[in-house]
Order: sequence, then structure tokens, then C-alpha cells
Amino acid sequence: MEIINLRRSVRSFKDIPVEDEKIEKLLRAAMQAPSANNQQPWYFLVIKNKAKLKELDVVSRVVPNAQVAILLLNRKENLLSPGRVSSDMAAATQNILLEATYLELGSCWIGLYNDGEDKFGKVANCRKICNIPDEYDLYSMVAIGYPEDEDANKFINRYDPTRVFYGKI
Amino acid sequence: MEIINLRRSVRSFKDIPVEDEKIEKLLRAAMQAPSANNQQPWYFLVIKNKAKLKELDVVSRVVPNAQVAILLLNRKENLLSPGRVSSDMAAATQNILLEATYLELGSCWIGLYNDGEDKFGKVANCRKICNIPDEYDLYSMVAIGYPEDEDANKFINRYDPTRVFYGKI
Repeated sequence: MEIINLRRSVRSFKDIPVEDEKIEKLLRAAMQAPSANNQQPWYFLVIKNKAKLKELDVVSRVVPNAQVAILLLNRKENLLSPGRVSSDMAAATQNILLEATYLELGSCWIGLYNDGEDKFGKVANCRKICNIPDEYDLYSMVAIGYPEDEDANKFINRYDPTRVFYGKI
Repeated sequence: MEIINLRRSVRSFKDIPVEDEKIEKLLRAAMQAPSANNQQPWYFLVIKNKAKLKELDVVSRVVPNAQVAILLLNRKENLLSPGRVSSDMAAATQNILLEATYLELGSCWIGLYNDGEDKFGKVANCRKICNIPDEYDLYSMVAIGYPEDEDANKFINRYDPTRVFYGKI
């Protein structure tokens, strides 16, 4: 599928706002992701405030360049399959990236999934800056905007047939 | 994007083989997923043998109905971002589901991500049945085939505006 092929991590964006209609389409795409037992653990914080985006430099140097950032959160309680939340959240994140590509936007996935480390304190900093209540975990942030380089979303073939086994390893 | 909207978990399949060209397209889509530091942790085992698919009933009752199953594995060593492997693997899995929808196939994501529990021994059983060497972790299995119900991939709106916060929670 062309959109899957074209998607790239985009880190430089034009100084042009992203339309609210497009932001809503990104959120709609996210919520169409599959989730274990259809538990839909996701919540979304949309950040457009320039000062806030600049402050989020501590999370990733990409964010201050973006026009909008979407912070993906999941609730910690009332989950049918707690062990599958990270998969659900990743599927929602990937849907945002693909929808962004479809809408001629550039996007970059910034991982905030806390595997118990948070070596550089990014997750803690992001929680503080965005004022996230304790009942949510931070999963990822997607930085979004119109790509500075209009050719940013382009196909680079990553197919490696040595990664595939047929029948047995 | 229409394909994102149409994708559904499909659990009943026609007794028609899936073309090898389509299987390769699914694998190509998987490998176009983003990964942390572009570490590409993925490996794929393609299972078409009917007896093996039947045996994988212990993993999920969906698998014996499928024409092909793709087992997604990740290496445990030589990872730049070990804490992000689960995100990478989920993005690859989601790409397979979307590509399958695009190719008019049905698909179902079966979670094998071992969050330290493996309550029902599914991961251990799958490893044994598929003879997976220790150097790989099992992440997910995707069951694939032509949907029995030709209307299986259809849009059900999951958008919930109460999940979205603008500016602050």
C-alpha cells in the first residue's frame, strides 16, 4: 500500500499551521486501531501552544519544530488485558503516522513507553510539563506538521528477505 | 484513510489459499514500519502447513481457520533500544493488518507479547510447536485468509471525542 511505503520520520516542518479538520482525522484514525478485547485504553492530548511545544524540547528536539504534538496516554485501571496495552497504544500511534502521511503531513514517533527505566527523565519531564494526572501512563508523542522538505515522505525500500522464514526457522 | 476505517478482526476464512505474492506484500509492509533508531528487530515465520495451523489451536482458536499465519519474532540481542522493541513490533504487526485489508484479506492479531506472565502457556506452546530458537522472542501472530463474510472488513465508527483533550487535561 503506497501510504505504508511513503511514511518516513519527518523532523523539520514548515511554519504553517495544521488544520483542525486534519487533527481530528488523525485522532479518528488512532481510535480505529485494534485493541485487545477491544479495551480501547487510549486518551489523547493535543498540544498546539508554541511555548509548550518549545518547552517539550526536553522530550525531543523534534517537538519545538512541530506545529502540533499529540501525546498518547493510556489509563492504568479498568483494563481487560493490561499486558496488551502497549500493543494497543502502538497500533494507535502507527495509525496516526499513516493517516498523517495520507494527509500530506510529516510525523515523527517519539517513544515515551516507560519500560521501568526512563534513563533521561523524559517521561517524568513530559508528565510534569503537560500536567498529566497519575491515572494515565504516557505512551508516545507524535510531532506533526507540513514537511519542510516536500519530498520528505518517500519510499525507501526496507524489505530484507533474509528476515523471512517459510515453514520453519 | 479508508483502509484504516475498514480493518476489522476477521476470524472466519474461506477455504481458498492466499497467493504467495500477497504474502510477500504483507511482509514488505511489515518491514516498512518505523523502529527506534531504525533497529528493525523483526523476523517473520510464515506458516501455511494445515497440520501446523491446526496444532496452533492452543495459541488461538482463530489459527486453524486461517490459510496462513505469520509469526512475528524479534531478536533479543544487538538492539539499540531494547525498551522500544515492543513498539517496533506492534507497528510492524499493524502494517500487516492494514496491508491485508488493502489486499481484500481478513486478518486477526493474536498477542503473544510476554509481559512476564504467559498465564495460559500460549507463548511457551507456540515456541515449542514452531520450534523457535532461544535467541528470538515471540511478539504476535497474524491469522490471515479471505474472509468468509465478504463484508467482514467494514467501517464501524469508534471515534469518541471524550478521549481527546485540547491543550490540557
